[in-house]
Amino acid sequence: MKIDEVVEKLVKGEISFHEVDNLLEANAAMVARRLALEKILGIGLPSIGSTVIDYSEIKNKNAENVIGAVQIPLGVVGPIRVNGDYAKGDFYVPLATTEGALIASVNRGAKAVTLSGGVKTKIFKDEMTRAPVFKFNSIEDIPTFLKFIEENLEKIKNIANSTTSHGKLKSITPFVIGNNVWLRFSFETGDAMGMNMVTIAVEKVCQFLEENFPSADCIAVSGNMCSDKKQTSINSLFGRGKTVVAEAIIKKEIVEKILRSNVNMIHDINLRKNWLGTARAGSIAQFNAHFANIIAAIFIATGQDVAQLVESSSGYTWTEVRGEDLYISITLPSLEVGTVGGGTRLPTQKEALSIMGVYGSGDPPGSNSKKLAEIIASTVLAGELNLLAALANKELGKAHAKFGRAMRV
Amino acid sequence: MKIDEVVEKLVKGEISFHEVDNLLEANAAMVARRLALEKILGIGLPSIGSTVIDYSEIKNKNAENVIGAVQIPLGVVGPIRVNGDYAKGDFYVPLATTEGALIASVNRGAKAVTLSGGVKTKIFKDEMTRAPVFKFNSIEDIPTFLKFIEENLEKIKNIANSTTSHGKLKSITPFVIGNNVWLRFSFETGDAMGMNMVTIAVEKVCQFLEENFPSADCIAVSGNMCSDKKQTSINSLFGRGKTVVAEAIIKKEIVEKILRSNVNMIHDINLRKNWLGTARAGSIAQFNAHFANIIAAIFIATGQDVAQLVESSSGYTWTEVRGEDLYISITLPSLEVGTVGGGTRLPTQKEALSIMGVYGSGDPPGSNSKKLAEIIASTVLAGELNLLAALANKELGKAHAKFGRAMRV
Amino acid sequence: MKIDEVVEKLVKGEISFHEVDNLLEANAAMVARRLALEKILGIGLPSIGSTVIDYSEIKNKNAENVIGAVQIPLGVVGPIRVNGDYAKGDFYVPLATTEGALIASVNRGAKAVTLSGGVKTKIFKDEMTRAPVFKFNSIEDIPTFLKFIEENLEKIKNIANSTTSHGKLKSITPFVIGNNVWLRFSFETGDAMGMNMVTIAVEKVCQFLEENFPSADCIAVSGNMCSDKKQTSINSLFGRGKTVVAEAIIKKEIVEKILRSNVNMIHDINLRKNWLGTARAGSIAQFNAHFANIIAAIFIATGQDVAQLVESSSGYTWTEVRGEDLYISITLPSLEVGTVGGGTRLPTQKEALSIMGVYGSGDPPGSNSKKLAEIIASTVLAGELNLLAALANKELGKAHAKFGRAMRV
Amino acid sequence: MKIDEVVEKLVKGEISFHEVDNLLEANAAMVARRLALEKILGIGLPSIGSTVIDYSEIKNKNAENVIGAVQIPLGVVGPIRVNGDYAKGDFYVPLATTEGALIASVNRGAKAVTLSGGVKTKIFKDEMTRAPVFKFNSIEDIPTFLKFIEENLEKIKNIANSTTSHGKLKSITPFVIGNNVWLRFSFETGDAMGMNMVTIAVEKVCQFLEENFPSADCIAVSGNMCSDKKQTSINSLFGRGKTVVAEAIIKKEIVEKILRSNVNMIHDINLRKNWLGTARAGSIAQFNAHFANIIAAIFIATGQDVAQLVESSSGYTWTEVRGEDLYISITLPSLEVGTVGGGTRLPTQKEALSIMGVYGSGDPPGSNSKKLAEIIASTVLAGELNLLAALANKELGKAHAKFGRAMRV
Repeated sequence: MKIDEVVEKLVKGEISFHEVDNLLEANAAMVARRLALEKILGIGLPSIGSTVIDYSEIKNKNAENVIGAVQIPLGVVGPIRVNGDYAKGDFYVPLATTEGALIASVNRGAKAVTLSGGVKTKIFKDEMTRAPVFKFNSIEDIPTFLKFIEENLEKIKNIANSTTSHGKLKSITPFVIGNNVWLRFSFETGDAMGMNMVTIAVEKVCQFLEENFPSADCIAVSGNMCSDKKQTSINSLFGRGKTVVAEAIIKKEIVEKILRSNVNMIHDINLRKNWLGTARAGSIAQFNAHFANIIAAIFIATGQDVAQLVESSSGYTWTEVRGEDLYISITLPSLEVGTVGGGTRLPTQKEALSIMGVYGSGDPPGSNSKKLAEIIASTVLAGELNLLAALANKELGKAHAKFGRAMRV
Repeated sequence: MKIDEVVEKLVKGEISFHEVDNLLEANAAMVARRLALEKILGIGLPSIGSTVIDYSEIKNKNAENVIGAVQIPLGVVGPIRVNGDYAKGDFYVPLATTEGALIASVNRGAKAVTLSGGVKTKIFKDEMTRAPVFKFNSIEDIPTFLKFIEENLEKIKNIANSTTSHGKLKSITPFVIGNNVWLRFSFETGDAMGMNMVTIAVEKVCQFLEENFPSADCIAVSGNMCSDKKQTSINSLFGRGKTVVAEAIIKKEIVEKILRSNVNMIHDINLRKNWLGTARAGSIAQFNAHFANIIAAIFIATGQDVAQLVESSSGYTWTEVRGEDLYISITLPSLEVGTVGGGTRLPTQKEALSIMGVYGSGDPPGSNSKKLAEIIASTVLAGELNLLAALANKELGKAHAKFGRAMRV
Repeated sequence: MKIDEVVEKLVKGEISFHEVDNLLEANAAMVARRLALEKILGIGLPSIGSTVIDYSEIKNKNAENVIGAVQIPLGVVGPIRVNGDYAKGDFYVPLATTEGALIASVNRGAKAVTLSGGVKTKIFKDEMTRAPVFKFNSIEDIPTFLKFIEENLEKIKNIANSTTSHGKLKSITPFVIGNNVWLRFSFETGDAMGMNMVTIAVEKVCQFLEENFPSADCIAVSGNMCSDKKQTSINSLFGRGKTVVAEAIIKKEIVEKILRSNVNMIHDINLRKNWLGTARAGSIAQFNAHFANIIAAIFIATGQDVAQLVESSSGYTWTEVRGEDLYISITLPSLEVGTVGGGTRLPTQKEALSIMGVYGSGDPPGSNSKKLAEIIASTVLAGELNLLAALANKELGKAHAKFGRAMRV
Repeated sequence: MKIDEVVEKLVKGEISFHEVDNLLEANAAMVARRLALEKILGIGLPSIGSTVIDYSEIKNKNAENVIGAVQIPLGVVGPIRVNGDYAKGDFYVPLATTEGALIASVNRGAKAVTLSGGVKTKIFKDEMTRAPVFKFNSIEDIPTFLKFIEENLEKIKNIANSTTSHGKLKSITPFVIGNNVWLRFSFETGDAMGMNMVTIAVEKVCQFLEENFPSADCIAVSGNMCSDKKQTSINSLFGRGKTVVAEAIIKKEIVEKILRSNVNMIHDINLRKNWLGTARAGSIAQFNAHFANIIAAIFIATGQDVAQLVESSSGYTWTEVRGEDLYISITLPSLEVGTVGGGTRLPTQKEALSIMGVYGSGDPPGSNSKKLAEIIASTVLAGELNLLAALANKELGKAHAKFGRAMRV
């Protein structure tokens, strides 16, 4: 069928948008949908249509019903020096955002930390999780069920691991409410964020459990104790993705000259804003100023699952006055990132990852995603440092005047 | 200076990335930074460089140190019928995502709700907030301070409103920890999300308060009780942005034919996953399956502040079995969106908003952003409905086979 | 009937324990139940039987099926100097506890604050709440319902206030999830804690609402947003009972001589334990060391509703180093206490209240319960101060050696 | 010295209350303090003075500065049938409270569950915890520190276990914020609640760690991640004390005849009140109606550490409609109880424990405290059942009329 015919059928409502993929080659289908939408709505969508994305490459992998692309400005921060176990050296970091002043703000923080010798980072945990929920008729069966799992752990691991060449089941943690049981499965997932491979593996295990323990009824492969795309205590306490900590000591001179601020005031603001303010507001784990800003911008730039910003942006900013200097650390309990799979292979996202030297699978596997996590943690620290300094200096007003928008806090 | 010279200076480290804006016209500066980065890193960034964004239009407004753009696939969901107070009729909804199966999933939900007569929506609150923190020497002064504010409320409103033509201060709510006081300012902000105008207005009020009540020391214009880009109880209880509720009744036949699922099982999964599972995991306000997926995709598509996904994705999915049919509602206590300002004016984002007929300022002001909020709420409902149905049907496995990635839950 | 006969019938299972009240005078019934239980179980309960409580005075008011009383050791702390708006002067505070070292610990704190000039206190709010939940068929009716309440507010106040001579309805705050609405009613309740009068008043209002707005179905007079006997954000943000703040400045010399501790270490422990530790553990509002210990002991001593310890013990301990001295404040957002009604009139409880001069109704009404709240807040501050000092001094071990049990933290 | 002389010195302020213990025999000291207080305040304290407590037995063990005792009415609930692993049979349960209607309410619930065949219980975990916080100069040392602990785990266990004959260290779980580390130690503690033995054991381990890993600075033996007397996610997710689940199926006839209520309405109220209401209010883990009421009353009666009510009252009430009948379960993630030590040996408390046959150490050790936990869980279920039934029946009003006070919810 020709594009024009398809467009006409769409406009008339004779076919639906997703049926177009059956009638036309991928990129032609993309065009047809856009043209039809323009006709139906009487508007033009030329910018959306102007894209480097080859729909045939992503169809059924990254998106459906595609009509083009949205474009987000991409700026770079850096160089920022990272003294990690995986990321070592000076890095440029790509941030995609539409919020004025954000990139400039993080960039100044990056300058301050780099002049101070860089950011030290440590990764304490690295696991991806999925937690199905099972229903039982009575609590009577639950201890037996948990024992069954314990006794068949090796078998279960084999079943899980048989579904993936990259993932590896590490542990299963049970939780109970009455006759309901959640099993939280934790996996190593190499350089992938891993949600996909973990879901497939857990579905297979659930099948095995239902077949071999008939009183266990798997209600849903995700029972919200995973917790995916949610800010929960289980994520901050048990970790999800990477648990990363970053720290730096900023000399008094740098605080004053680069950040035009004051060590004691930064510390004071950190306490009253990030600790007292967040506690008073009622929060699970977001004792920080604006982790979400920096992580959102890097996630968008590098093809991460942006909805995972919700839990990835939880964490803690801790400062100390060390003599005349400032100690600052940030802790990310559940940073979920990958360098393979998902949106990482899209044209612009792949390039953004390559700016940091972390595109694709690392050697050994897992080292690239850990390197990315360390760079993100360092950049988050830079962003926190600069915002606290700016607040101390009451220079948000100046940022407005200069950048037309408030620095978001 | 010529581009080549600037690139060379960048490569040599003689100038920094943001200084380029002083040496070259905006778009030339963008090119120069990209070229320099390519040279420094020995990589190519052609896709990032291929953009419809005119940097001169966004410089100092939406981003800095820009080298190009990131492109995210944009698909459409719909039509979805919305029976709101602002959005009335059938809408196509643009979703930007790299997560396979998401758009297809929401689309099927949209079909089901539309065949059921559409989604009813109500907006219960619409305010943007900012909460500075003040320090006092002693609690002795705090009652006097609060009384001063009460007695000067009209004056304070005038000061706040004088800084903006669109915002209007509605109320101030105080909170205390020892000698620290937070004042949470709430504003009407028309069609703008409003964070920027509110920050400027509150800075002005803080100046007034510090001058006229000298024992009040404003530590930071944002004291984290706002709470911006954080998931907090204060946001879910007092609201931030729009508080929106959406509901639909899905006939048994549609649940079975369109969603290939079962009314009772959907209800059961909703209880055990979204309520028991989330409660057991420890959460402030995210008793839902995947609000974050849908909201992230629309936020990216329409130029919203993506970091605000954190609180915008909080909320509740509630179902009831009504005879043989399914009642489903979703509640968003703090959905923060705008149709003017921020990233909404960028080329592709503007087009995305125009797909829903909500670009720019509405008549009366505020009606466009409320219309957008109602469409988002309806789409979120469609997404929840479909995911719960899919879980009931254990068809996630099929989604993998078809779309190559798991539906994220 | 004679006691012996009743006992025999009880032992044979011919009558139930609560039926005894219909057969014998109150105190005889108490004895009969105890004797029967002794026979049934073959044990002696002489201590429980040895009580000053006259069961005829409390029957159907404070307890049922009574067989005697439990006795808790009562110690006194003080004098502690309170510089409040209601409590002014030096007070002895009764603590009932079985936990060794607690009273001694608080007592040392009281000595330190009194030598420092006393504790300053302020009450910021004083309200008792009850929140019924209503179900609607559709969200369509909810805005109308809320408007109805707004328009009939005076009428509703009259209905509420007609049920009580001491309570006064101040405000109604609505919250929504889908087709469910909670109305949180706030009352002034004078010197009573007020839960009882508020429940009766709200039941009456619910009747009125159901009759005059038939689509509103009151599911339960308490919908858990009250929130009674639960630690919730709504209690800490909106307050329940009294919102009290207390502060003191402790001279370096007193920290060193009386508390044998160190100002900087106390501050450091407060930050790392009460703020970082609590935040990391995941808490709604309990950023303190052991408010619960002190409040439990005073609640038991004075006939408060001990189950309300749950929310009454939430709150924040904040310290600052002021030159060489220590600033310390504690904040109690939801301290629920009364000096009339409930257990306050029991013989020992009444005496315990009289030790602080707060038994019964104050002049003006409400002043006694506020005075009690200020004394409690001051004692809590003393307890926090001493525990932080003891931790700094690592003298818990010594406390064990001396008192046989750990100071609980 | 004679009592009169001591009293005079007290009245004149020449000696302090706690110094009296050095001058007089224990019970004489108790009397002297009371007499002095009566003189100082001009009041009488005869009821407080009338006690069965022998102060020489509890001095330096359970309380200090004692002047007598407070007396709380003690009623019995039951018999309630428990089908547990430790508690098997029909039990009478002692409740100490001053809140009218509570005992009667729980008693009716007990009747309903017993007529339905009793309550089934399971204990899933049983551990007592203590979590010191350590400070480091840099995060650099933390991985080494954690490795040191792992490699010396057996040695650490020996050190911990050497301090106690009843406790046994089971595991250590680390958590990090920046340069701060919490180690959460979990112990088996037999029939003791165990807080005391655990604290002493952990202090010893901290000494060892500080000596052998000098860069670790133990800031406080309790870093609030324990979490003692606080409602935190770490307690609900990892458990503290006993994790107990109880369930029962209540026949339709019993719901209607004994509880005068309705199965569907009870289920509906449970969902809208305990799940939606609590979630909307913002809570860590208190998705129930009034666990706190029942647990407070049993804790007071049996000499438990009442301040631990805060976390012990967290938990979940879950109901299902099973055909025409009602399934109800309650889950207590962190119920902290003991049958030896603390207040359990006081005269009335010991008798109260003996009513349930759980005083002292069980055979094997731990079986008595587990039996107590199962009885408590069953009684909590009875209390929840009756309150939900009463709310469905809107009979709270009648309860007021009958008992003079509201049933607290």
